[in-house]
Amino acid sequence: MTDFARTKALFAIPDGVVYLDGNSLGPPLRGVAARLSRVVEEEWGGDLIRAWNTRGWMAMPAASGDRIARLIGAPAGSVTMGDTLSIKVFQALAAALAMRPDRRVILSDTGNFPTDLYMAQGLIGLKDAGYRLVTVAPENVEAALDDTVAAMMLTEVDYRTGRLHDMARLTRAAHRAGAVAIWDLAHSAGALPVGIAEHDAEFAVGCTYKYLNGGPGAPAFIYVRPDLAAAARPALSGWIGHAAPFAFEPGYRPAPGVERMRVGTPPILALAALDAALDAFDGVDMADVRRRSIELSGAFVAAVARAAPGLELASPRDPAARGSQVSFRHPQAYAVMQALIERGVIGDVRAPDVLRFGFAPLYLDLDDAERGAAILGEILASGAWREPRFSVRAAVT
Amino acid sequence: MTDFARTKALFAIPDGVVYLDGNSLGPPLRGVAARLSRVVEEEWGGDLIRAWNTRGWMAMPAASGDRIARLIGAPAGSVTMGDTLSIKVFQALAAALAMRPDRRVILSDTGNFPTDLYMAQGLIGLKDAGYRLVTVAPENVEAALDDTVAAMMLTEVDYRTGRLHDMARLTRAAHRAGAVAIWDLAHSAGALPVGIAEHDAEFAVGCTYKYLNGGPGAPAFIYVRPDLAAAARPALSGWIGHAAPFAFEPGYRPAPGVERMRVGTPPILALAALDAALDAFDGVDMADVRRRSIELSGAFVAAVARAAPGLELASPRDPAARGSQVSFRHPQAYAVMQALIERGVIGDVRAPDVLRFGFAPLYLDLDDAERGAAILGEILASGAWREPRFSVRAAVT
Repeated sequence: MTDFARTKALFAIPDGVVYLDGNSLGPPLRGVAARLSRVVEEEWGGDLIRAWNTRGWMAMPAASGDRIARLIGAPAGSVTMGDTLSIKVFQALAAALAMRPDRRVILSDTGNFPTDLYMAQGLIGLKDAGYRLVTVAPENVEAALDDTVAAMMLTEVDYRTGRLHDMARLTRAAHRAGAVAIWDLAHSAGALPVGIAEHDAEFAVGCTYKYLNGGPGAPAFIYVRPDLAAAARPALSGWIGHAAPFAFEPGYRPAPGVERMRVGTPPILALAALDAALDAFDGVDMADVRRRSIELSGAFVAAVARAAPGLELASPRDPAARGSQVSFRHPQAYAVMQALIERGVIGDVRAPDVLRFGFAPLYLDLDDAERGAAILGEILASGAWREPRFSVRAAVT
Repeated sequence: MTDFARTKALFAIPDGVVYLDGNSLGPPLRGVAARLSRVVEEEWGGDLIRAWNTRGWMAMPAASGDRIARLIGAPAGSVTMGDTLSIKVFQALAAALAMRPDRRVILSDTGNFPTDLYMAQGLIGLKDAGYRLVTVAPENVEAALDDTVAAMMLTEVDYRTGRLHDMARLTRAAHRAGAVAIWDLAHSAGALPVGIAEHDAEFAVGCTYKYLNGGPGAPAFIYVRPDLAAAARPALSGWIGHAAPFAFEPGYRPAPGVERMRVGTPPILALAALDAALDAFDGVDMADVRRRSIELSGAFVAAVARAAPGLELASPRDPAARGSQVSFRHPQAYAVMQALIERGVIGDVRAPDVLRFGFAPLYLDLDDAERGAAILGEILASGAWREPRFSVRAAVT
């Protein structure tokens, strides 16, 4: 049984803050700054160039990859780290298209995060004519799978509503249609058990700065189904994905397994922060995380229904149909959120009218859920959000 | 006049070490760990998601880009940061090919760093048939420029020998042939004035962990000639390069200028370390750096000629024809370097027989050059490198 009181104590969240935005940026663990100081002063400063050997830097992407593999239900050796989620999406898509050379369609849905669609558009722009991105409503993906589809690319949890795709069913449907399945786990990794290997999907990608708490812009991950790793073609064929990077051969030869998806020199400081953050998941059972997530988000939905009875739920009411996030609609979502933040309840908004609240079981408890809902109710009942200062937008929202 | 005693005092290099490997990994500045602690604890931990606004995180790639622009002779607003050098090479190449749709050749040379060639090979694998990478000897690049060449992609300073290309002449030659010029400044940025804008090259890319001391795997940079930035097509079209990332539009629209070359979420911790490192260049004139670099490497070459008269110089003898690095050949280069490192003189090797020594004026002085050469001479004279333990190879060399 996972001890969530223990995990909560690992995080440094300011007093008085109810942090319901870990679905956008997870908070730091207490040990992160000390770990970074050690890496800078002892490893980099002490060993200088030799640290690549003496401190195991080159193995860090595989080591963190293995820790994340456990959290998404993948075997050790099937996940590696680096770059950003956008780059990893591109790599998975390019490899998928190479696996289905006679097909020309990338199928996605309107609930996907835009960068996934943008990266597909960029890839198509590089290919010869005929490739296209087809985007349908989330509920129509299965019907749109046919023998033109090379790759089905979906984000498991909708970033606006928290709606959870049925990964098992859709992956089976993709495979029946002969398509490759690519899952974006940005809002899943660290929040749900996922079970990527069990569902037999070919590729998965994700970021580590949300529920994995790796820090702003932390390195991304990519999973390649082990039976495919030795054949997957890395379009972004950088030297660190080469079979022998330090042989400095003129021709690219991919590394044997998922390590071929590495591109450039690993970002050691960022990987060290991520590794420190992953300590929070030691001894954590992802099934417990899912149960607790449903308990917390369910308590929040119920408390909001009492405290702010008119507020429209934008997420599925059935907790099994949503991720670890609950959204509501309010025509003045931005001002409401600013008023909430001033009261110490931090969520975020997505235009035009979505209030988002993430429930990360590692550092939130039922008191947080109740308190967040109560303050939301107070702000809506009092109209405090109508103060003009709350509607002045910041640059990044 | 640049005060190199001041800059030297900023660096934390262990006592007794002569660090001649800043061409591979620059050492940390004393202030880096403290800066990272502040970013983790005050910015990330204190402001959480709001730090994207309150701490200017989203502007960090442009801010560091401007600081690097000054060092490579580019105007403010023409450089942005992110990803790795390999990714930036891919972006520049893809944009260059799109600018010359009727041409099919990427021209490079055998002195280029392999990842540049590998990324070109990967890009070509995505395109329709007919594209190819042509690699010639460095001295034959100019003769190989013809009307089939879409892009000439060269690294200014050869990573093995330090040989410096004539950027002005080769860029002019590329333009006469109608080709786009892409310069990799991995071994130039922070070591030479470069003058990229004056030479009119279309693209430049570089890493920041060598002479810029940004840390292991620090973010890369890309320069796009300002008159082209509004038209350059980003093949890696990620959301942070979108004109309005937070509008979450379904279609990609590139940002107006070089910021379109951003891809995913900026790596804030790594950018903070880099920004702290760039403080060392405040008040530094790159012409002074070049003069000092020639003085240091010249003194080293002369001292090695006295201390180890048989050792073959692998770099150009004319300092104007080399970067900030001096290489020698020795059939047992690896063992010699291990013996040197044990004596506190840190350089590195490149197979099969190259000893590399980098001269970073910001933290090295003439004493370092003399002492490094003297110890090299002692090791070769005594045969100390013949001890078997010196020939046991580490994993990464």
